[in-house]
Amino acid sequence: MFKNRLEAFTDGVLAIIITIMVLELKVPHGGDFESLKPLLPVFGSYVLSFIYIAIYWNNHHHMMQTVNHVSGRILWANMHLLFWLSLIPFVTGWMGENHFTNATLSLYGVVLLGAAIAYFILQKFIIESHGKDAILAKALGNDVKGKISPVLYVLGIVFAFVNAWISGAIYILVAIIWLIPDMRIEKAIKEQKK
Amino acid sequence: MFKNRLEAFTDGVLAIIITIMVLELKVPHGGDFESLKPLLPVFGSYVLSFIYIAIYWNNHHHMMQTVNHVSGRILWANMHLLFWLSLIPFVTGWMGENHFTNATLSLYGVVLLGAAIAYFILQKFIIESHGKDAILAKALGNDVKGKISPVLYVLGIVFAFVNAWISGAIYILVAIIWLIPDMRIEKAIKEQKK
Amino acid sequence: MFKNRLEAFTDGVLAIIITIMVLELKVPHGGDFESLKPLLPVFGSYVLSFIYIAIYWNNHHHMMQTVNHVSGRILWANMHLLFWLSLIPFVTGWMGENHFTNATLSLYGVVLLGAAIAYFILQKFIIESHGKDAILAKALGNDVKGKISPVLYVLGIVFAFVNAWISGAIYILVAIIWLIPDMRIEKAIKEQKK
Amino acid sequence: MFKNRLEAFTDGVLAIIITIMVLELKVPHGGDFESLKPLLPVFGSYVLSFIYIAIYWNNHHHMMQTVNHVSGRILWANMHLLFWLSLIPFVTGWMGENHFTNATLSLYGVVLLGAAIAYFILQKFIIESHGKDAILAKALGNDVKGKISPVLYVLGIVFAFVNAWISGAIYILVAIIWLIPDMRIEKAIKEQKK
Repeated sequence: MFKNRLEAFTDGVLAIIITIMVLELKVPHGGDFESLKPLLPVFGSYVLSFIYIAIYWNNHHHMMQTVNHVSGRILWANMHLLFWLSLIPFVTGWMGENHFTNATLSLYGVVLLGAAIAYFILQKFIIESHGKDAILAKALGNDVKGKISPVLYVLGIVFAFVNAWISGAIYILVAIIWLIPDMRIEKAIKEQKK
Repeated sequence: MFKNRLEAFTDGVLAIIITIMVLELKVPHGGDFESLKPLLPVFGSYVLSFIYIAIYWNNHHHMMQTVNHVSGRILWANMHLLFWLSLIPFVTGWMGENHFTNATLSLYGVVLLGAAIAYFILQKFIIESHGKDAILAKALGNDVKGKISPVLYVLGIVFAFVNAWISGAIYILVAIIWLIPDMRIEKAIKEQKK
Repeated sequence: MFKNRLEAFTDGVLAIIITIMVLELKVPHGGDFESLKPLLPVFGSYVLSFIYIAIYWNNHHHMMQTVNHVSGRILWANMHLLFWLSLIPFVTGWMGENHFTNATLSLYGVVLLGAAIAYFILQKFIIESHGKDAILAKALGNDVKGKISPVLYVLGIVFAFVNAWISGAIYILVAIIWLIPDMRIEKAIKEQKK
Repeated sequence: MFKNRLEAFTDGVLAIIITIMVLELKVPHGGDFESLKPLLPVFGSYVLSFIYIAIYWNNHHHMMQTVNHVSGRILWANMHLLFWLSLIPFVTGWMGENHFTNATLSLYGVVLLGAAIAYFILQKFIIESHGKDAILAKALGNDVKGKISPVLYVLGIVFAFVNAWISGAIYILVAIIWLIPDMRIEKAIKEQKK
């Protein structure tokens, strides 16, 4: 039952994050298409962040399916993850409104990196409390995606100061990597049931 | 269980969308009725969008009742739908605050069209993963409403540049079409149970 | 199951309404207590509206406990209620920021009246679809509170143009009437179980 | 079932509170790191309040696990708690934007004190309605944390007018006290099951 409430709380926070981001798209005073132009970069960063939150929601759901009991450590690791994700609307708006300057691009990467580390810690705690033979441990295997993402975020942060396009491309690349269907956990759950 | 969480997340996002739209009704500084006048077009567009979100919530619920298992494709098709719906508060505010200029009316139609196409794709994926004999496939039949709506949205977008009243009337017409009780899915579920 | 999702959606909307109202309490630029003074009327109207939303949540919950099946009519009557309640943050902010002028006080009453009528319609539809012997019908009895509230709201709207204090006092009075514990539905449910 | 809906409503309100606080982090117009500097105090107060809301969510969840039936008194005591917590985004923003002046620090303490008293009342009502031998009563024991917190908040309020650093340190101290794992209720539930 605790697990259900933790999921419901996480769902609520993610639903609000994904929706209030759109508030950064400030309604322009002009009523012609010209007035929308300045909003295009904000819109672009909104689309990227929307996809990131959706990925986190999806991964979080799959991971929680393998959880039997929620300890205090898991609870706080989850709160830690939500903290980083709660900063995404801010960095999204900052990045979009200032046309992807190097400072804004690097901070965007820092928040993504923080969320990735928080997710990694949460995953570690869940595996530790469920045993090495648990579904999640088996499903993750080498966890290539989980290991390569933080490296790419660091690259994105560094390249933010060199070339904004490369930095942005790296953040988009990570999103694409995660969008590619990942059946590991679903498979592991099915095999467990056999 | 995944289905329940997907529904809960969708409910959360729709509940937030329908409620933050009212934030576009900016509290005026004057305390007399005169100060409310400039808000009337914003209020009008709010009412229309409120009804649209309510219709989507209602249809989404009925459709999900026929779903047994949620695949990755269905999940992402649902996220795609939420993306378009998340833009409704923005286009609603833009349209209302700029007194239904042709640009704002056409963008409103584009977002409604995007949401309709996203809904159509979601419906298609659900039918495909449940078989042609599934409840949803039977319930939809010819799916006149689903097919006529995108056509009307396109008409609304085109007429936005000709006559704002016709364009607005078309968007209201689509809402009315959907408000007319649609018992198809409810009937199909009942028949299935017999 | 539909009932559960309708409750969850309603809970979500009410939770958001009750929380975004506090956004009308705009953080003042000064850091001393003096800067808070202009916010006192906004705070007062916030407290009143918080209590009203809490009462609606409570009554809605009790009423839904008696519902077995949700028809399309009940769904739309519920959406109609949510529409009026969604306007409460706006009228609360308008009333508070303009120091309870007669126009703001009367509009506040109009929205409360609209919500009361919407609630009455919802109640009527639920009774009609569950039969005269249903729990809700028995529990309501003469429904004195439900009948006296709209009358008091109308009085509040009229007195808004005569004396702001009387008008405000009437709205506070209705809230107090509803805060007095009302065991009717709880009793009726218990008796049913015997 | 009422309990579930009360929990869901509370979760919703807390999820919104924790997320809209980040809206006080207003996106700066400059795109360099220099522009972020003025936001640091707001960010600091955000982190503290995030932790407080997370603690309340956690404690609330554990307390509700021991509840069998929800009376009208418990419902309203819960609403009273939510009222104080709903003020946290406001006092957080006020404190951060005005660089922890004594007035803002003391009001922050007043809201924390109000929430602590509201939580104490809620706890009292739950114990009273479940009997002295109930799980919650046993689990709390002397309830040192619950008794020491209000005292520390009062100290924080008083010291706000003497030394801002001491006042702030006290609020951080209370958060740390609560972050230290508290197994009382979990233990009591487990023992009950034996």
